[in-house]
Amino acid sequence: MNKNSEVIHLHHGSGGEHMTKLLNEVIFKILKNDVLEVRHDGAFLNLQGNLAFSTDSYVVSPIFFKGGNIGELAVNGTVNDLSMCGAVPKYLSLALIIEEGFGLDEFTQIIKSIKEAADKANVQIVTGDTKVVEKGKGDHIYINTSGIGVVHEKANIKIENIKEGDAIIINGAIASHGMAIMSEREGLEFESDILSDTINLNHTIKDLMDRFGDKIHFLRDATRGGLASVLNEIAVDANLGIAIFEEKIKVENQVRSACELLGLDPLYVANEGVFVCIAASEIKEEVVQILQKINPNASEIGFVTAEHPSKIIIESAFGGKRVIKPLVGEQLPRIC
Amino acid sequence: MNKNSEVIHLHHGSGGEHMTKLLNEVIFKILKNDVLEVRHDGAFLNLQGNLAFSTDSYVVSPIFFKGGNIGELAVNGTVNDLSMCGAVPKYLSLALIIEEGFGLDEFTQIIKSIKEAADKANVQIVTGDTKVVEKGKGDHIYINTSGIGVVHEKANIKIENIKEGDAIIINGAIASHGMAIMSEREGLEFESDILSDTINLNHTIKDLMDRFGDKIHFLRDATRGGLASVLNEIAVDANLGIAIFEEKIKVENQVRSACELLGLDPLYVANEGVFVCIAASEIKEEVVQILQKINPNASEIGFVTAEHPSKIIIESAFGGKRVIKPLVGEQLPRIC
Repeated sequence: MNKNSEVIHLHHGSGGEHMTKLLNEVIFKILKNDVLEVRHDGAFLNLQGNLAFSTDSYVVSPIFFKGGNIGELAVNGTVNDLSMCGAVPKYLSLALIIEEGFGLDEFTQIIKSIKEAADKANVQIVTGDTKVVEKGKGDHIYINTSGIGVVHEKANIKIENIKEGDAIIINGAIASHGMAIMSEREGLEFESDILSDTINLNHTIKDLMDRFGDKIHFLRDATRGGLASVLNEIAVDANLGIAIFEEKIKVENQVRSACELLGLDPLYVANEGVFVCIAASEIKEEVVQILQKINPNASEIGFVTAEHPSKIIIESAFGGKRVIKPLVGEQLPRIC
Repeated sequence: MNKNSEVIHLHHGSGGEHMTKLLNEVIFKILKNDVLEVRHDGAFLNLQGNLAFSTDSYVVSPIFFKGGNIGELAVNGTVNDLSMCGAVPKYLSLALIIEEGFGLDEFTQIIKSIKEAADKANVQIVTGDTKVVEKGKGDHIYINTSGIGVVHEKANIKIENIKEGDAIIINGAIASHGMAIMSEREGLEFESDILSDTINLNHTIKDLMDRFGDKIHFLRDATRGGLASVLNEIAVDANLGIAIFEEKIKVENQVRSACELLGLDPLYVANEGVFVCIAASEIKEEVVQILQKINPNASEIGFVTAEHPSKIIIESAFGGKRVIKPLVGEQLPRIC
């Protein structure tokens, strides 16, 4: 049997010699760092300050897609959740549920992506777990990452801090991740590829915190359920209304075409690198300028209002207004 | 459709209204606490001291078994991993991968068990994630918990601290968890039920730390791969030998019968509530006494020796000696 056709078997999850071999020859070899090196049941950490703690399981299908893979997503997703708490992410755990028969080459590629994404975000994978389930009881690989970050000393991200008149800013075009996955699933071809927008947002958020501190009132990444769902959650939790302008929300042309083809509204399509920043009105131009340096599609898309609490109202380019309801039912299963 | 036949659908994992309903009516309702209440992308924690961080995914099959269920296991397992670091567990994350069609009643029962186990261990579930995968891409439910604990100020648990002459102590009879699961799978009936030994060990470990501090040199729970695999890992990592006495290792009668029936060696069968404590020789009687008050099957089973580094040698009641190798291959898949 040549190396290229090696696969993961149930015994790789048994706690015995085969598991040790998989850990040593792939996982520890690639992810190597001082904390992981201790190889105890848990990692020992020394952290000062207030902490943020977050978890996400990644079940995206397919596991490889244009612009990324499940490994990269698993790092960026949890790094971003911590960032949305105003925290600087420090340490991640990594727990794998592998389906028997999963190829060792693909597995190794995913672990390498995890390492690269962790390095980019300047976080360490410090503890982990590997389970193998029978064929037909999983789907290639599911990944859980949990993360710990230190809350930025100037940060004060709280739903209660959102005020009437605050600006709603997003950092890029929407719906790219969801449509990258859907194009892959449906085998759609466009003139140019639709790439997932998966990226670590922690350095951007740290920059905003350094400059603006508690004038950034709230942050949330617009992942599952898309921008519409996240804005609805915020409006309900804050008991305030949100008014947005359709023309300010950027959607890449090929993403828009794909949405039209599949009958999907980009507002409800998942993102991985898009976040909503709710900022005090006096800093809004500066925030947009900073975000536009990273991504020209960053834009102030609307504002917080007391007029229609718990409701999102969107105004079209022609002045028509409609309510944007929360997502009901399932639009895109297993998008992350 | 009556409530008893309600099941979880893909849309419960979509990030939309159905997911919010599942969260509000089951998960948040049962697990309710101040930190979770904030409902942000991550939890805000305030912890002082050195921290321990651990993760495990639980894929046990069946999910309900005599003596416990996957929910309880998911809490106790991570609580125990933190305890084995000499830490006092404080906070857990909870990430669910649910297979479409999973019954809402069973789901609710599992969340209730999680709450009960968390209360017993005095830990809080502070952040979480819910994903739903299509039928045939999971197996009822997989659960990941990650945990953060504060390392006990007197603790110094390190493989390097293990010394020649140290006592090897275990806190109870072995192989019960593995055989509880196997009896369930094979439909075996015994005169009395075989119960899983799943339990939280954190209060016991804290007690040992309070009393003995750094005279406890090493701790590890004997889960996957059983006592034999864990002792082998320790011997290899410490580059020291371990000598154990067969007659000192307790196995419940019906567990031994089940092992014989299925041709399994109890030394390799998984436990959930058994841990190995490697202690300085001068405190060994006291440690055993304390552990026996909780479980009369606690016992000093052997000692650390420089004579056969990286090897475990067991002596039978008749004086015969043999090497206990690490587990090769898969004995009991999906035992935890």
